[in-house]
Amino acid sequence: MPHLYVEYSANLPGLPEQQMLTELVSAVCSHPSIVDEFDVKGRIAATQQYVIGTGAGPRGFIHADLRLLSGRTPEAKKELSDLIAEVLRRLTPHPMGMLVQVSVEITDMDRASYHKSKL
Amino acid sequence: MPHLYVEYSANLPGLPEQQMLTELVSAVCSHPSIVDEFDVKGRIAATQQYVIGTGAGPRGFIHADLRLLSGRTPEAKKELSDLIAEVLRRLTPHPMGMLVQVSVEITDMDRASYHKSKL
Amino acid sequence: MPHLYVEYSANLPGLPEQQMLTELVSAVCSHPSIVDEFDVKGRIAATQQYVIGTGAGPRGFIHADLRLLSGRTPEAKKELSDLIAEVLRRLTPHPMGMLVQVSVEITDMDRASYHKSKL
Repeated sequence: MPHLYVEYSANLPGLPEQQMLTELVSAVCSHPSIVDEFDVKGRIAATQQYVIGTGAGPRGFIHADLRLLSGRTPEAKKELSDLIAEVLRRLTPHPMGMLVQVSVEITDMDRASYHKSKL
Repeated sequence: MPHLYVEYSANLPGLPEQQMLTELVSAVCSHPSIVDEFDVKGRIAATQQYVIGTGAGPRGFIHADLRLLSGRTPEAKKELSDLIAEVLRRLTPHPMGMLVQVSVEITDMDRASYHKSKL
Repeated sequence: MPHLYVEYSANLPGLPEQQMLTELVSAVCSHPSIVDEFDVKGRIAATQQYVIGTGAGPRGFIHADLRLLSGRTPEAKKELSDLIAEVLRRLTPHPMGMLVQVSVEITDMDRASYHKSKL
């Protein structure tokens, strides 16, 4: 059931969307808390309209949100966050003179009301 | 205040976006825990760039997130999740040979800080 | 680390996206609980495919979600919600005869597993 959402400011040209997503999904699947690789669904999109803070100078960001069914330990969540951050940091371009923020958020989804099935 | 977000992989051509959303909003509004039909705001969008797991073979997904003000019972949340899943399962195309995942998530929104008004 | 997401129904032409986002980010940064202006990342997008309730008549909406690291007081969250709502209400067009809903949600992000770094 993990859902992974990646979004980044559109001023990071050349970001390898498909490669990044493939590596992120592999990284998440490599963690022992993930039972079925099939369940990991990743998406990536560039954000066209954004504002980063109030200061001057070129700025960019990339942000990932991994949504997991509730019940993972804090340690597992931190490890997953670190695995994701490693890929983001390695594959995100940082144009000269631009400050690029990287962030990862792990979100619990309510297990009791979660529906999952296949067609 | 309920907010409903539906997203699906762009390899499900022919998915009837408007009909699905209309039926989903009706289904949510039919639940006794929803007081005002006006409050139910649904959106749907196809996701262009996605990766599903690490295995081979054609795969697709559709996912709904219903965001409700905190305070609903676990039973109400499960019922709403089931109502949504029924519509998704009925109206999502499943191309031959493709495994399509259907999932529904119910999310609590913090009631104390929620703002709601009309213009 | 605050992330701000604004989305609105595409039937509100003339909504000043860039100005609204700039004012929203300034408003959030003005709150004493926000330490570094650089951290506030705002996005805005129009939603093309939406359904609002089951009733007739033209309807629109604008919704903001502010995601904060967990630990803010309920008072701080309410104040941030009010600051955001003020900007939304002031800058959202309301076409004649249309009922436009304005809402703001404050979401806690899990602090322990949050990753933040710069490139």
